[in-house]
Amino acid sequence: MDKYKQAIEELIKFRNERDWEQFHDSKNLALAISIEAAELNELFLWKKESESDNVNIEKLKEELADVLSFSLLLAEKHNLDIFDIVLEKIKRNAEKYPVDKAKGTAKKYDEL
Amino acid sequence: MDKYKQAIEELIKFRNERDWEQFHDSKNLALAISIEAAELNELFLWKKESESDNVNIEKLKEELADVLSFSLLLAEKHNLDIFDIVLEKIKRNAEKYPVDKAKGTAKKYDEL
Amino acid sequence: MDKYKQAIEELIKFRNERDWEQFHDSKNLALAISIEAAELNELFLWKKESESDNVNIEKLKEELADVLSFSLLLAEKHNLDIFDIVLEKIKRNAEKYPVDKAKGTAKKYDEL
Amino acid sequence: MDKYKQAIEELIKFRNERDWEQFHDSKNLALAISIEAAELNELFLWKKESESDNVNIEKLKEELADVLSFSLLLAEKHNLDIFDIVLEKIKRNAEKYPVDKAKGTAKKYDEL
Repeated sequence: MDKYKQAIEELIKFRNERDWEQFHDSKNLALAISIEAAELNELFLWKKESESDNVNIEKLKEELADVLSFSLLLAEKHNLDIFDIVLEKIKRNAEKYPVDKAKGTAKKYDEL
Repeated sequence: MDKYKQAIEELIKFRNERDWEQFHDSKNLALAISIEAAELNELFLWKKESESDNVNIEKLKEELADVLSFSLLLAEKHNLDIFDIVLEKIKRNAEKYPVDKAKGTAKKYDEL
Repeated sequence: MDKYKQAIEELIKFRNERDWEQFHDSKNLALAISIEAAELNELFLWKKESESDNVNIEKLKEELADVLSFSLLLAEKHNLDIFDIVLEKIKRNAEKYPVDKAKGTAKKYDEL
Repeated sequence: MDKYKQAIEELIKFRNERDWEQFHDSKNLALAISIEAAELNELFLWKKESESDNVNIEKLKEELADVLSFSLLLAEKHNLDIFDIVLEKIKRNAEKYPVDKAKGTAKKYDEL
């Protein structure tokens, strides 16, 4: 079985064994993503960006996994394949950020 | 080519064509995940949870894709396979949330 | 002494005694606000909105105080009076959300 | 009238004129704080911390005002004075971060 399918199946099994589907509406899943993203950011708080790649890798793995787990569950709830939506978004972003205007600048598309 | 590999390659190609790797330290990638997660949450702000599965699917796809794209880039930077870290985290969570204590409750593990 | 001035003075004293001003650039203060806001949100995760006013008041006080403390420090760094900027923003929002269009709806101003 | 009282009164007037109290349960107010905090953080995304004090002051005022407005409304809903809870939290933090251990370090209290 491929790993994507396996991850989804184990996430759902974990959820169902605990009878947690009742809590997993889209709004709460999105909120959970946001809270886990903040825990990920806490690893970098007060640290220099230039040193931020030196993060504790075990903690990074845990917090990033939490963000991903709720993202996978939210995608699954809406029958979305995460790679399809990422590939589709890259195409949209290529229109919003044309190479000749966006190269080397961190400006937002509406300021290019 | 499998879709995971393809998504990573296209994300990196998109980034490199724009010379954006200079901005993508771990701290800023984590911050970007958090900001995109907030945009995802904005789709649900002031809405009822019970109605939240009825979200605009096109917007959901875009915001969730943004969260996932930066998550994929952060994982790639640290040579992490997203499914490996998710599967590993499920095991840890199974210890923190044993079925007999966690079933049917939304309490945090330190309150079980 | 008024309480606003007192709060700022005590926040700065606390910071300076610990030699933390070095960490308190605007970007990190904003990040701290965001992380504390997520901790505040965690009090409501998986809970029903309709029951959310029943939150643990001691925890609410702590998390909201953290959001406010970093907000006060960021305002102070830029010589902003928090009430002046709030009053000014209410005026701007009154233009973005005219009563006749915004009444009773949770739509964003660009969808009104 | 003092400015704190004035700000609260104008926030409530703004809300009531638009019949928005129905949306302002504690959970949604906390979520709004978090979303506005992310917009504040977006001003600093991809920027160097060392240059972050050079932020666009008009945008900073607007985003910080949004964070503060929802924080004031959440405090008001629970009959909390923002300065009282900040001063109380400083005392708690002084216990969690004793000067001799916390001086000059950005470590969290549980790592001191």
